[in-house]
Amino acid sequence: MTVLTPELELLGPDATTRTTVVRPGMCGPGSLFVGQVGDWTWDTVSALCDTNVYTARDADGLPTYLAFHYIHLRGGADLHVRGMTFGDVLRVDSRSFASGSESVLTLHEIRRGDRPGRVVDPDEFYAHPDPACLYAQNFNRWVVRGPSGGNGDLRSASPPGFRHGHLPALPARHSPRRAYAELRALGAEPDPSDPLDRLALDYPVDPSRDLNGVGLLYFASYFSIVDWAALRLWRHRGGTDAGYLRRIVLDQRMSYLGNADVGAVLRVRVSRRPGGDVPGADETVRVVLADRDTGRPLAVALAQTRTEGGTWA
Amino acid sequence: MTVLTPELELLGPDATTRTTVVRPGMCGPGSLFVGQVGDWTWDTVSALCDTNVYTARDADGLPTYLAFHYIHLRGGADLHVRGMTFGDVLRVDSRSFASGSESVLTLHEIRRGDRPGRVVDPDEFYAHPDPACLYAQNFNRWVVRGPSGGNGDLRSASPPGFRHGHLPALPARHSPRRAYAELRALGAEPDPSDPLDRLALDYPVDPSRDLNGVGLLYFASYFSIVDWAALRLWRHRGGTDAGYLRRIVLDQRMSYLGNADVGAVLRVRVSRRPGGDVPGADETVRVVLADRDTGRPLAVALAQTRTEGGTWA
Repeated sequence: MTVLTPELELLGPDATTRTTVVRPGMCGPGSLFVGQVGDWTWDTVSALCDTNVYTARDADGLPTYLAFHYIHLRGGADLHVRGMTFGDVLRVDSRSFASGSESVLTLHEIRRGDRPGRVVDPDEFYAHPDPACLYAQNFNRWVVRGPSGGNGDLRSASPPGFRHGHLPALPARHSPRRAYAELRALGAEPDPSDPLDRLALDYPVDPSRDLNGVGLLYFASYFSIVDWAALRLWRHRGGTDAGYLRRIVLDQRMSYLGNADVGAVLRVRVSRRPGGDVPGADETVRVVLADRDTGRPLAVALAQTRTEGGTWA
Repeated sequence: MTVLTPELELLGPDATTRTTVVRPGMCGPGSLFVGQVGDWTWDTVSALCDTNVYTARDADGLPTYLAFHYIHLRGGADLHVRGMTFGDVLRVDSRSFASGSESVLTLHEIRRGDRPGRVVDPDEFYAHPDPACLYAQNFNRWVVRGPSGGNGDLRSASPPGFRHGHLPALPARHSPRRAYAELRALGAEPDPSDPLDRLALDYPVDPSRDLNGVGLLYFASYFSIVDWAALRLWRHRGGTDAGYLRRIVLDQRMSYLGNADVGAVLRVRVSRRPGGDVPGADETVRVVLADRDTGRPLAVALAQTRTEGGTWA
């Protein structure tokens, strides 16, 4: 008899661990795995901070969401975001760090095999020493919908019972603020790429695929839209779909700047340049998302890939 | 301290139960919940049949997949596929029924609240008496890839250790074979709809969204493609996206006839007619998927909806 039961265990007041089996609903070339990492963040914060993140409300009784503000996924040749398949056994060690009452940082170390859980060490995490570990950083902020009731004016909030004082402080040298500020600034910079290496595309938000269970543009859908644009640039340069699927995403960062309503059309600027600053990366793709009609910025993403098998394979 | 841990419990040699919290990765207007139901099926069969469904191989050592052959989701006004949101607590009672060595039928009863688990009774299941219960039927067949190595010639198979003799037989009156044969036959029939009520569309398989972790067209993506087509017909008839999102899908059936490779373009024929045979349904949408170039049939789907708030709201 095989019983496959994901279990979250506490390793201390600031750390959790679980072992899980990769299912169809959490892997593949789409963004299901990214969505799964997000659920792990919400599980971990729920377990550590005396707050059911899934049902949290602010002091006025309005639903408040632990929105994704910055995500950094750093894999290696041996374990990367789209490299998992059915039945892989994963150990997920997670730890949350204090960032005031309105935000929280969570680090996940994901490794294959049913090994013992361990408390994530931030110095080791940011050194990314293990090519068989997928390092996932999630910086989240509590938001509520603003007076419009739409998705365009989310504002900061916090559920009253959110307990965070016991979480450790992240050493300042690792603060994600600098990283996401740099990424955000990149979105406003002119793009030096060769004109052959960039595209501007319109992406209408798809009500049948892009929204989450509370009507916001789902954070994992931003990854899908970025991939959609990267694929179009790949084809524009003569690449095949099979070659696209052989790309290994070694490092991916997303800075979230805004949400969007159903009916919005996103302006998607995608560009690429050779090389990267991550070992093994031979291409860096930049994607900037904005509301087409208002110009309101929505996200900036950077992906470093290894285009295994040759770009045109 | 809130610990959110999904747990699968055995209720007997043929039945499991679990309670779970709805997370962003398993709800919303897309097909994430359908994907989650599929994972529950694989979990249940793994727990009952001495076979790790996620890593199964046939007698030749080739990976064999417990593919979705027929799905029937029947909700009510109080609990339906797209009606769940973050933090909803669900009790999922599941039971598998014998169907030889190459297939298996699994029934799930999904209700809100952390109530005790119970063994699914098939007579009650097929009577759908409870408007607060979502009834999910999954009929699955073991398949392996054929000589081409592609997705177009999957053939039957079975992992040698698949234990099924202890599962109960489903009373013949409930056999899904008749239901999916009827649905399949519908795909070959001429469509009597008014020409204003139908569309034929091309859908290129999207390598950045539609494939699963083993490179097949993901069974939940068929639901996404059906929804994509239903939305286009809805807009074609003058409906708004907001109105589309208010539709309640009371009953949805999918008969899977084939898989498709990256690069394939699907021919999608979608039509609608007023009414339905499910209480409360005021519209029935039929979608037929085929490979555009070869005509090979891929799926037939039928959705009965209540277009709450009026069709043009």
